[in-house]
Amino acid sequence: MNFYQLAGAALAARPDRKTIIIDAANFPTDRYILQGYAKERGLNLVIINNEDPALSQHERVTPELLEKYMSEDVAFVTFEVIQYRAGARNDIKALTDIARKYGAFAIWDCSHAIGAIDLQFDKDGVDLAVGCTYKFGFSGPGSPGWLYVSKRVQKELQVPIQGWHAQENMFDMGPTFKKAEGLAGFQIATPSIIALRSVQSSFGIIEEAGITNIEAKCATGTQMMIDLYDAWLADLGFTLNTPREAKWRGGHVSLVHPDGKQIAFALRQLANVIPDYRAPNSVRLAISPLQNSYAEIWDGFSRLKDLVASGDYKKISNTNSKVT
Amino acid sequence: MNFYQLAGAALAARPDRKTIIIDAANFPTDRYILQGYAKERGLNLVIINNEDPALSQHERVTPELLEKYMSEDVAFVTFEVIQYRAGARNDIKALTDIARKYGAFAIWDCSHAIGAIDLQFDKDGVDLAVGCTYKFGFSGPGSPGWLYVSKRVQKELQVPIQGWHAQENMFDMGPTFKKAEGLAGFQIATPSIIALRSVQSSFGIIEEAGITNIEAKCATGTQMMIDLYDAWLADLGFTLNTPREAKWRGGHVSLVHPDGKQIAFALRQLANVIPDYRAPNSVRLAISPLQNSYAEIWDGFSRLKDLVASGDYKKISNTNSKVT
Repeated sequence: MNFYQLAGAALAARPDRKTIIIDAANFPTDRYILQGYAKERGLNLVIINNEDPALSQHERVTPELLEKYMSEDVAFVTFEVIQYRAGARNDIKALTDIARKYGAFAIWDCSHAIGAIDLQFDKDGVDLAVGCTYKFGFSGPGSPGWLYVSKRVQKELQVPIQGWHAQENMFDMGPTFKKAEGLAGFQIATPSIIALRSVQSSFGIIEEAGITNIEAKCATGTQMMIDLYDAWLADLGFTLNTPREAKWRGGHVSLVHPDGKQIAFALRQLANVIPDYRAPNSVRLAISPLQNSYAEIWDGFSRLKDLVASGDYKKISNTNSKVT
Repeated sequence: MNFYQLAGAALAARPDRKTIIIDAANFPTDRYILQGYAKERGLNLVIINNEDPALSQHERVTPELLEKYMSEDVAFVTFEVIQYRAGARNDIKALTDIARKYGAFAIWDCSHAIGAIDLQFDKDGVDLAVGCTYKFGFSGPGSPGWLYVSKRVQKELQVPIQGWHAQENMFDMGPTFKKAEGLAGFQIATPSIIALRSVQSSFGIIEEAGITNIEAKCATGTQMMIDLYDAWLADLGFTLNTPREAKWRGGHVSLVHPDGKQIAFALRQLANVIPDYRAPNSVRLAISPLQNSYAEIWDGFSRLKDLVASGDYKKISNTNSKVT
């Protein structure tokens, strides 16, 4: 929704440009939204191949990789701050600078970053960003998404959905849409108040804990996962698909295994450990920094090791689930 | 949001048609959304004048009125089931039939109807509808909106926002959007679960009470308001702007007064009665059928009479409020 809004606004602000850029490892939703725009408006949707390890390590979009695709025809580029599968962190400032050099917008999807790492939009020159609140923001299932538009570009941009809450003096119920000043002009309708109250509580806790402390705990927790991978899992057929340098990670790691899907389902059903399975073969494991202890990470990885070393995970045959 | 989705889907299904129709008394939001589409795509946005009593009584869109504007160039028409200001009810079946005769869609905004009257989409031949849950659905501020697409047109229509929840086999995270079958293909993202839980509770109560009983109570309650208007208010400068026949009303009435704004604010501040003020001069009063007693209606109207008869409402000078 918010991503649709900002992508549409960026397109409207660059009406003569016909190329939009995303990466192959980006979250599928973002790609589906752009496929919709591309089909409707005859745009050239470029999908950067960052799933081939020969081109990109851990799905990162490097400045060198992006530069090859840029031209004056690009309306916007969009990437994830933290890759949803591999957990690699992109260089926000470097990629934003490249987009800006060509007069294009950069839209950052912060869904797997917000609440896990210290986002510095001003320092990194970010103009446009979206994200969720239900992952590291722990505001509950389906909690509201958000969008960010820097003061620099608020006047220039007009979102496609001209909603009531974007209207100047909304209760005048005037005949014609007139965009409200500032971020108000990017709203649509009344958000769920009970859902916002949950966001307020959760992000109040995050503020109290301090995002730099949280980021440090994510770094330590994921380092511990990597150390346990080295000690226990590397010899069991797993491959780590997450950067070893903490500054290029977020709060989760990705362990690839030929039987990844079966292992992920077995973890849940036999070992009471809840991972994500991400196609085609990733077991995704996160530290929830405000809730998880390091002892829990140790324990979870110990169960994973036992499950795979014993071959017990092969007892699981039903890997059908609507949610993975 | 849902209105944007269905309007966009209707436009995509009638790509050669360049006219869309709404009425002047419709809720401003719907008009703002259509202004956005009209500007972006060079469409002819026709606004039927139903605010002039010489053309339309109580803002109703009559079949005769609509017929004058129809042609084979119309992609869709959109109206409210219950006019948000006057509270008049439109003839859903007659207007939908006219649209269909010209090959156009009819999109019904049920925001002021759902939970107040017995909507019969199948009987009335409705293909497309949207609504809220926070008015007569009493699911709380900002509770989720909804959309309806009849089985007849589900295959034909594609909404502009191709969201994750509309994707067939969403957790396969496939590279390309493929619309899921049925209504699932019209979803966007995960709705707030805590907000949906409120909707479930409220509409469970509505189901238990029975919508025909609720509609009957709305009819009696609004009839009582009209009787009290006749007895107490007609001589105080008020004009009733709501149909006297119950079958052409919903759950609210509109009382027009030259000092409507001041009276509405005074009701709230001096008499502990909470009306809506709707520009330019309407005091809107509703029965909340599951919560309000008839005694409360009597009491509220009695306070309104006293406030205006005494002239006490003129003590209110500050009528500035962001919400009215």
